Amino acid sequence: MSNPSLLILPGDGIGPEVMAEVRKVITWFGDKRDLAFDVSEDLVGGAAYDAHGVPLHDDTMAKALEVDAVLLGAVGGPKYDDLDFSVKPERGLLRLRKEMDLYSNLRPAQCFDALADFSSLKKDIVAGLDIMIVRELTSGVYFGEPRGIFEEGNERVGINTQRYTESEIERAARSAFELAMRRNKKLCSMEKANVMESGILWREVVTRVGADYPEVELSHMYADNGAMQLVRAPKQFDVIVTDNLFGDILSDCAAMLTGSLGMLPSASLGAPMDNGRPKAMYEPVHGSAPDITGQGKANPIACILSFAMALRYSFDQGAEADRLEAAVEQVLADGVRTADLLGEEGVTPVSTGEMGDCIVAAL
Amino acid sequence: MSNPSLLILPGDGIGPEVMAEVRKVITWFGDKRDLAFDVSEDLVGGAAYDAHGVPLHDDTMAKALEVDAVLLGAVGGPKYDDLDFSVKPERGLLRLRKEMDLYSNLRPAQCFDALADFSSLKKDIVAGLDIMIVRELTSGVYFGEPRGIFEEGNERVGINTQRYTESEIERAARSAFELAMRRNKKLCSMEKANVMESGILWREVVTRVGADYPEVELSHMYADNGAMQLVRAPKQFDVIVTDNLFGDILSDCAAMLTGSLGMLPSASLGAPMDNGRPKAMYEPVHGSAPDITGQGKANPIACILSFAMALRYSFDQGAEADRLEAAVEQVLADGVRTADLLGEEGVTPVSTGEMGDCIVAAL
Ligand SMILES: CC(C)[C@H](C(=O)O)[C@@H](O)C(=O)O
Ligand SMILES: CC(C)[C@H](C(=O)O)[C@@H](O)C(=O)O
Repeated sequence: MSNPSLLILPGDGIGPEVMAEVRKVITWFGDKRDLAFDVSEDLVGGAAYDAHGVPLHDDTMAKALEVDAVLLGAVGGPKYDDLDFSVKPERGLLRLRKEMDLYSNLRPAQCFDALADFSSLKKDIVAGLDIMIVRELTSGVYFGEPRGIFEEGNERVGINTQRYTESEIERAARSAFELAMRRNKKLCSMEKANVMESGILWREVVTRVGADYPEVELSHMYADNGAMQLVRAPKQFDVIVTDNLFGDILSDCAAMLTGSLGMLPSASLGAPMDNGRPKAMYEPVHGSAPDITGQGKANPIACILSFAMALRYSFDQGAEADRLEAAVEQVLADGVRTADLLGEEGVTPVSTGEMGDCIVAAL
Repeated sequence: MSNPSLLILPGDGIGPEVMAEVRKVITWFGDKRDLAFDVSEDLVGGAAYDAHGVPLHDDTMAKALEVDAVLLGAVGGPKYDDLDFSVKPERGLLRLRKEMDLYSNLRPAQCFDALADFSSLKKDIVAGLDIMIVRELTSGVYFGEPRGIFEEGNERVGINTQRYTESEIERAARSAFELAMRRNKKLCSMEKANVMESGILWREVVTRVGADYPEVELSHMYADNGAMQLVRAPKQFDVIVTDNLFGDILSDCAAMLTGSLGMLPSASLGAPMDNGRPKAMYEPVHGSAPDITGQGKANPIACILSFAMALRYSFDQGAEADRLEAAVEQVLADGVRTADLLGEEGVTPVSTGEMGDCIVAAL
């Protein structure tokens, strides 16, 4: 039997730096745990644009559709700000999401004990925080038609369309309920059903799917109130499910509550493949961070924990994922810190590369 | 000359309770400062639905278009949750905004010194916070067509349309720049130009309007990053301008940073009327709070400060607005607190009505 396959797309900014550290971890699993991967690497985002004039080459897209999992670094940067919309780095990422049909985006907001002081929130509000946001990722205003900038009379009008079918809502909801079943059986769905008809349909479908999960306590909240409640008392939540655009904003808000974005992984999952595992892409929550690129300041942990999620969700290696997560916690407990997490007394500042080495050593 | 006119729409939940306290303040200004208003009162939201079967009667709409300013309490409540979308309480509010053409919604997020401890954020992050969010209020996904729930094949699809013309963006931007000129000359515009064409047009038009305000330092931020930055370091902002939907969420997030929603007023302004003053509606940021309705627990300050904003923006009575705001600060400094702001040592708990009396006494 051949090894499981992994496509690595480092992307832009700090993407390649953090991915280099994930490579060390992957190598370790191959050498020490007899868990070898067929790893290929390719370009996405600005890097792909520089090479090919498009933010994702068709060949790369085809590869992504074939492998068992994709691991992505980050895309975008000021260098590409003035590019035409159709070839912006982000379009590469969005094409991957859409064509791989990764409808369920899992974004944990978890506050690591050792790092609770980095939050801008009071310690008791965030210590022990562990919520999971399930964001619908392949529909809504990100992809709805019509869209564009059109002439109208003697001015222009910018149009985007929020659009959700029942089946799109249903499959995202179902994945959130499944997740809630494996966690604390509490799910909060967020929309603006008081203002948007798409929100009414969202609420209705989520409620209907909920009938299949009688054990899960389902609640509904308007998304604006959701933002407030996340700031006020985030620990009231376990799993949150919401649409693509609200999910973009609310998951970033939730992530920032922890104060350590450099720690947070994410998974984007689609329908099951022949092997029973979902199509999947894993990426850190943080962006390409052009301001610190190339300075050894980036924290590779989010990307390394994204690989841990891949071990768990794509490769059925839950125990190995636990092992990797434990190694990360060990290193943090030892006081090892990249530049984003300095400030406390008695910690050991390290570079991106040294952090990778420490984690491998802890493994 | 006749008195300036004011239409009071208490609405639902705690709306009538907090408005009763504003009434005391209005009476005081008439008696003691020779500043009498022609006050009329009418129904909106669920209260209007109960009386007329619609959340805003045409006669009320007509009155709102005639007066110098509208003061609104709050709308909505669980009693109305199952109403058809077209007659939900919120539709009354949205109709007022739309037909009065109140395109510029000013939402201050201000942290009162005496209350900084109520924030879930660390004190140094929020103490002294004073930002103003300018939210476009009459367009975008709230009003764009097509909208609705439609049959498509053998399922339904929920559709809403995000739609902005150049002139809609321009007038909102202009009001934000004007405000920035009167404050710290720093404006941050938020959209998702990396994903939405309407965001591209937004950014372009805001930039163009900015050429008329060379003194204002203009920046642009993606709305998801905006949510993060609000949580991480809100004091980096002075004025923020954004669209209707992002503004709904980001302004609630910003308001909650202060920890005391019961303190925050808002103004919704339109084009100048014959008297040179803008069409205007004022309302507290908090909602109808059905859970505490009728218990004397509501904080009337947000609504009273909304009246202070009316004094300033609609009645050219800046000095009287200052006087009212000073009275509120005085009462807080004296340790007088409604139920939402209890918890500290040595404060005096008061009911909604007592708070109103204290503020009048401080005047
Ligand atoms: C880079 C951008 C297209 C993307 C999004 O808006 O979805 C990012 O913000 C995210 O949340 O993954
Ligand atoms: C009540 C509701 C329609 C309204 C909105 O979504 O605009 C409210 O949330 C607000 O922010 O004023």
